[in-house]
Amino acid sequence: MSLFHGLSAFPITPADASGQVDAVALCRVLDPLIEAGVDSIGLLGSTGSYAYLSLTERQRILDLVLHHVVGRVPVIVGIGALRTDASVALAEHARDAGADGLLLAPVSYTPLTEEEVFQHFAAVAAVSDLPLCIYNNPSTTHFTFSLPLLARLAALPGIQAVKMPLPADGDYAGEIARLRAALPDGFAIGYSGDWGALPSLLAGGDAFFSVVGGTVPQPFLRLVRAAMSGDAATATRIDADFAPLWDLFRAFGSIRVVHAAARLLGRADSDPQRPILPLPEAELPRLAEALARLSDH
Amino acid sequence: MSLFHGLSAFPITPADASGQVDAVALCRVLDPLIEAGVDSIGLLGSTGSYAYLSLTERQRILDLVLHHVVGRVPVIVGIGALRTDASVALAEHARDAGADGLLLAPVSYTPLTEEEVFQHFAAVAAVSDLPLCIYNNPSTTHFTFSLPLLARLAALPGIQAVKMPLPADGDYAGEIARLRAALPDGFAIGYSGDWGALPSLLAGGDAFFSVVGGTVPQPFLRLVRAAMSGDAATATRIDADFAPLWDLFRAFGSIRVVHAAARLLGRADSDPQRPILPLPEAELPRLAEALARLSDH
Repeated sequence: MSLFHGLSAFPITPADASGQVDAVALCRVLDPLIEAGVDSIGLLGSTGSYAYLSLTERQRILDLVLHHVVGRVPVIVGIGALRTDASVALAEHARDAGADGLLLAPVSYTPLTEEEVFQHFAAVAAVSDLPLCIYNNPSTTHFTFSLPLLARLAALPGIQAVKMPLPADGDYAGEIARLRAALPDGFAIGYSGDWGALPSLLAGGDAFFSVVGGTVPQPFLRLVRAAMSGDAATATRIDADFAPLWDLFRAFGSIRVVHAAARLLGRADSDPQRPILPLPEAELPRLAEALARLSDH
Repeated sequence: MSLFHGLSAFPITPADASGQVDAVALCRVLDPLIEAGVDSIGLLGSTGSYAYLSLTERQRILDLVLHHVVGRVPVIVGIGALRTDASVALAEHARDAGADGLLLAPVSYTPLTEEEVFQHFAAVAAVSDLPLCIYNNPSTTHFTFSLPLLARLAALPGIQAVKMPLPADGDYAGEIARLRAALPDGFAIGYSGDWGALPSLLAGGDAFFSVVGGTVPQPFLRLVRAAMSGDAATATRIDADFAPLWDLFRAFGSIRVVHAAARLLGRADSDPQRPILPLPEAELPRLAEALARLSDH
């Protein structure tokens, strides 16, 4: 089974009020994910605030945390950076620190051309033999992968998967068919945007890269298992109980909501780095209710 | 006269093939701007690759370069960063290093709310008494300022100017009138996007923040002076000679073009940091011709 298969859970990276990350709290956040049996953990993804941490901080977190989880669950590490030399250095460090796979987003400031993104990925693929997943997230990177560019990248050694944004037109089956036709056999196609787990997995997605799975793993894992086994009725019933949480994600952005959820659940006393503000206090009762609704699963 | 008035020239920050910045080459780039008589210099703007440099590199450049220029020309320093604590630290450092003003862009990864951007700017304004210009550049920051947010920010102490993107509808006069009505008396309104210098200054803009003015200052300064004095005929004639350069800027992005121009003009042997690729070699003759056309001014 490919590394990029099933539920990949992306936890927060807990940080104190000054923005300093707390590796011990991160270990506390990871244990319930491993106990729940998620298929992989994605450290330092968007939810893990990778873009807001220095290269040194990112490497230090891996040095402190990876030995706590390696061997217990496969670990994918986010290595996105504005500069190619930085992503290359992060890829080498993650490999040496014991990561199982890499997740690379084409983070941009100056808008990038397709050729620039291709060469960026090729430079990383050339230095690391870890499996690599293309992180296609236009809402944060401001770069949209074309199908021909994905096909070019999929031909590079080590590039084995793509993490897609939810299709704007809601046509998951059509998009997955177009991707499968353009990409090599066995290339994994996954989605992120938690309210799209149900439709993307019922349409045949190989993986789901989840924010909520990094904080509330059990009920979301049941949803993923049901959808991937074709049990649409069960998956749909569980998804309905997540609806109030999806509403909060859409209204406030999932990163603000899961930091507050981790605090409510006693996992970590953490907020995102400023300028990102915490979930407004007035929303905490609504969040508590949304979480309580999941406790039956 | 306000610091944010007339031509603000934004040079490249020269770097070697490994991406390391070269402070000595930067001084060589700055001297012709000062000799040409630009109204201010913008160090570490988008053209100066600020987003691609670490906080330490940015502070080191200022420490090395500011003493070379302070007292000869007013200097505005770009202090944009993804984290509020980083922009605050850069603001304090730039003030202590001798900068005359600050330019702050709401750089984003996670999309920001208006309140988050307001608090980000308020935190910076609270620690520095240097004049500050709001850098409104949705194509790189992916945040668009509303008129009410600009008005809220303009009421903060020290916030004295806005650097606007070119209006999509081309209605400079209408936009400037709307901005003047919403903003305090004396608040400076400037634009960037070099092919918009002529229309924005003829429509009454207070300042122009220029890429080409940071590399080819003389002819562009004549354009700015003519347009600001209401001599539309002269300004239009000079602008026509810039047309082939504007075409290159629009086709390849100005940062790729001005690095190549600095090399052709013998100012610096520099490329942008990867993944940004240099201007394709095949375009160099076209660039040389575009530059030659400006030598009469």
